[in-house]
Amino acid sequence: MKLILTEDKNEMGHVAANYLLGHMNQQRRVNLAITAGRTPVSMYEYLIPQIKNKTYYQHVHYYNFDELPFKGQDRDGVTITNLNKLFFIPANIAHSQIHKLTLDNYHNHDNKIAGDGGLDAIVMGIGCDGHFCGNIPGKTKWANKIVKLPILADEKGYIADSEYNGDTTLVPDHYVTMGPASVMQSRQLILIANGESKADAIKQALEEDITENVPASILRLHPNLVVILDKAAASKLTIHTIE
Amino acid sequence: MKLILTEDKNEMGHVAANYLLGHMNQQRRVNLAITAGRTPVSMYEYLIPQIKNKTYYQHVHYYNFDELPFKGQDRDGVTITNLNKLFFIPANIAHSQIHKLTLDNYHNHDNKIAGDGGLDAIVMGIGCDGHFCGNIPGKTKWANKIVKLPILADEKGYIADSEYNGDTTLVPDHYVTMGPASVMQSRQLILIANGESKADAIKQALEEDITENVPASILRLHPNLVVILDKAAASKLTIHTIE
Amino acid sequence: MKLILTEDKNEMGHVAANYLLGHMNQQRRVNLAITAGRTPVSMYEYLIPQIKNKTYYQHVHYYNFDELPFKGQDRDGVTITNLNKLFFIPANIAHSQIHKLTLDNYHNHDNKIAGDGGLDAIVMGIGCDGHFCGNIPGKTKWANKIVKLPILADEKGYIADSEYNGDTTLVPDHYVTMGPASVMQSRQLILIANGESKADAIKQALEEDITENVPASILRLHPNLVVILDKAAASKLTIHTIE
Amino acid sequence: MKLILTEDKNEMGHVAANYLLGHMNQQRRVNLAITAGRTPVSMYEYLIPQIKNKTYYQHVHYYNFDELPFKGQDRDGVTITNLNKLFFIPANIAHSQIHKLTLDNYHNHDNKIAGDGGLDAIVMGIGCDGHFCGNIPGKTKWANKIVKLPILADEKGYIADSEYNGDTTLVPDHYVTMGPASVMQSRQLILIANGESKADAIKQALEEDITENVPASILRLHPNLVVILDKAAASKLTIHTIE
Repeated sequence: MKLILTEDKNEMGHVAANYLLGHMNQQRRVNLAITAGRTPVSMYEYLIPQIKNKTYYQHVHYYNFDELPFKGQDRDGVTITNLNKLFFIPANIAHSQIHKLTLDNYHNHDNKIAGDGGLDAIVMGIGCDGHFCGNIPGKTKWANKIVKLPILADEKGYIADSEYNGDTTLVPDHYVTMGPASVMQSRQLILIANGESKADAIKQALEEDITENVPASILRLHPNLVVILDKAAASKLTIHTIE
Repeated sequence: MKLILTEDKNEMGHVAANYLLGHMNQQRRVNLAITAGRTPVSMYEYLIPQIKNKTYYQHVHYYNFDELPFKGQDRDGVTITNLNKLFFIPANIAHSQIHKLTLDNYHNHDNKIAGDGGLDAIVMGIGCDGHFCGNIPGKTKWANKIVKLPILADEKGYIADSEYNGDTTLVPDHYVTMGPASVMQSRQLILIANGESKADAIKQALEEDITENVPASILRLHPNLVVILDKAAASKLTIHTIE
Repeated sequence: MKLILTEDKNEMGHVAANYLLGHMNQQRRVNLAITAGRTPVSMYEYLIPQIKNKTYYQHVHYYNFDELPFKGQDRDGVTITNLNKLFFIPANIAHSQIHKLTLDNYHNHDNKIAGDGGLDAIVMGIGCDGHFCGNIPGKTKWANKIVKLPILADEKGYIADSEYNGDTTLVPDHYVTMGPASVMQSRQLILIANGESKADAIKQALEEDITENVPASILRLHPNLVVILDKAAASKLTIHTIE
Repeated sequence: MKLILTEDKNEMGHVAANYLLGHMNQQRRVNLAITAGRTPVSMYEYLIPQIKNKTYYQHVHYYNFDELPFKGQDRDGVTITNLNKLFFIPANIAHSQIHKLTLDNYHNHDNKIAGDGGLDAIVMGIGCDGHFCGNIPGKTKWANKIVKLPILADEKGYIADSEYNGDTTLVPDHYVTMGPASVMQSRQLILIANGESKADAIKQALEEDITENVPASILRLHPNLVVILDKAAASKLTIHTIE
């Protein structure tokens, strides 16, 4: 594990963007999986002007690592919708470079990724509960590859609030995510976090037990993990430099 | 995971040797951790004539991944003694290329390996109980780096029989091993197994739950794991080709 | 440049084979270009039993780096015919893994190789005149990619003797070869030579001027060149270990 | 060769900086050689705020690839003085990360670089005469490693004007440079050029003969060359996208 301590969210995003650009500079096809959410906003702001309409980055492909569908609607899910807004549309990424994950294609997405050459890197955030991608405490199993998981009735209110503007009727009964056994196959993992609210999850993931109750704790077994934190997210770590 | 099915123990050993030779052909320093025991005998028979007295392999370094000391004796432990017999002496490897692990230096062995550039590859066997290196069900924790673990009174008879010619007075109270968090940092993992007696452990490790009760199950989360089996060891797998 | 000094032709071939096997152990598609002739005989003898009918080497592809057609005959050329005898037939390599070079397809062979992911390694011999592949003093230009070159009337006798059993009527007016600009694109170059008759060419190529008059002299500009020699071929070098 | 066409000098510098940052993100020690002059100004402007006082880039080392001493003065040469102004001082790079090349140490600089692990990348400009580093038409030989070359009396006026503010008394009788055989050993080469004045040199280097009269022409034999141009520098190329 390489731990990079940055001053603030802005620097965190710049460093993460530089990692992605480093991968993009390979001559062969590059396969990335990138995260939506609030954490990576500065990363995308930094990337967009460097990527937009640049033919020299047309060999870069993007794969969704999770998806929350809209119940009963034939439209793109929450994750891809957010990624479109955050990055794909402002950076003018071609549809042919974007590989969606859906309830329909998830069975074959691991095979597709392997056939396309495997992932070079995944950029992920972490939840306050220690989740990464859609790997939630109590649901995820280390052995899960890309998997369809249930959303229980008593979870719908929370998920509606965080992802569906409070509309519980849109929350589906299932979602899909790359599980730990899929994520760990990527040649590099990049974990980003900022803010005091993430400090406990970071502490648990990086310095305490490796347990399915804190899904992100598995990531530190990857031989090529980079963790990019701001000071607040790192504030509860006892070991500040780890190689 | 790349799964290689071979005809027999001999072919298994040859393929494993070719993986090691591939690493040895790098121009920079190469760091390997290799296993003792009966499984790798044909691997060493094949390697020895190609390595012995070859100046072009002097940049290869060998690290012990576990050690069982002799109780109350100031001498080399069981693992390094076996490796000396199997490989280091017949291949005439210089002492400067061999990095022992002991009860005295284990605290610093992870740092030493990192400072030397990290491991390029580890070749490991698997026990019928799913152990790898000294990671035993009920003792090992995923989060363990190099660790000193206790040997309980009721374990000494079994260990004496398998490692100390039945002499329980030689069995120590503690041994040392690279734990999962150390092993997983290697750039490649090579797991070898032969014989029907390993078929259940291989099945559990590669196709069932990833659990500390089957320590080797964690290995399949490594992005660069190669599993080399003979037909008998692979006989209970349902999926014979996995990429 | 890494220089490996071996005892004899047999050891030279074993080490070269180990380099090739090291490349073959990559998980993704592997692209190799290999040489015919007398120099690599022990390399192929060593490779064949390890490769033959092994499904775990089906991701390895072989590309011809030069070809001498038979004049006026619709049959395979000299190089591929020799490679078939030496390696492809005894190792039972599938036709789909063999990529011939011909007078008909040479225009597009560089593009094909690039599209297939580029070459991982080329194994080459050296001629007493310093040639490599079909790059002959007086004909080759450093800037040549895959190129069609003329065979002059006064060259046909010599070429007939060496490649066509003395039958000058079979010697064509043109042949094709990867030029220096194609060969140098490979991720690794492996140059093998044995015997006193090669000692002067090796000395010139590795320690004297880099000039189109000694085509193989360009190879030492490659950042990942391995030269594997027996003692006789190395006997005129002044610097015996070069990294 | 990968050819990247950018809109202007500013974008050229940003892309070059991203290549360097990509190398800097490796976990192990990183060794770079970087260029002074006017071409890389935007590259350094972009790099400085991302590098300055960042402990996570302390594993990056910088090597001079050429040096013009001040005659008769015991002070730093022209190249390192310019690099100090352009980058090392504003980015607050520690002295321990900067490896000067001098008339006194040049004999051993190739060995030092090899012992330090070799160069990961060199960023170079090109002269209107096709020179790179200090490899000047009529002086450089492909076989040169790091070399001390003479400055003739009739060259001193020109060099004084370009490098010594017109003071010919400061122009030395010799200078040192990495020759082609040293430069080509780097794992990646990055060639940058902007402006119409470089268009002919770029055309000659990338599309015409590979000859010691156009030293930069040798660079296209490197298997991992990236050429980053603005539109004006690329304006005479016939092939605008290569590989």
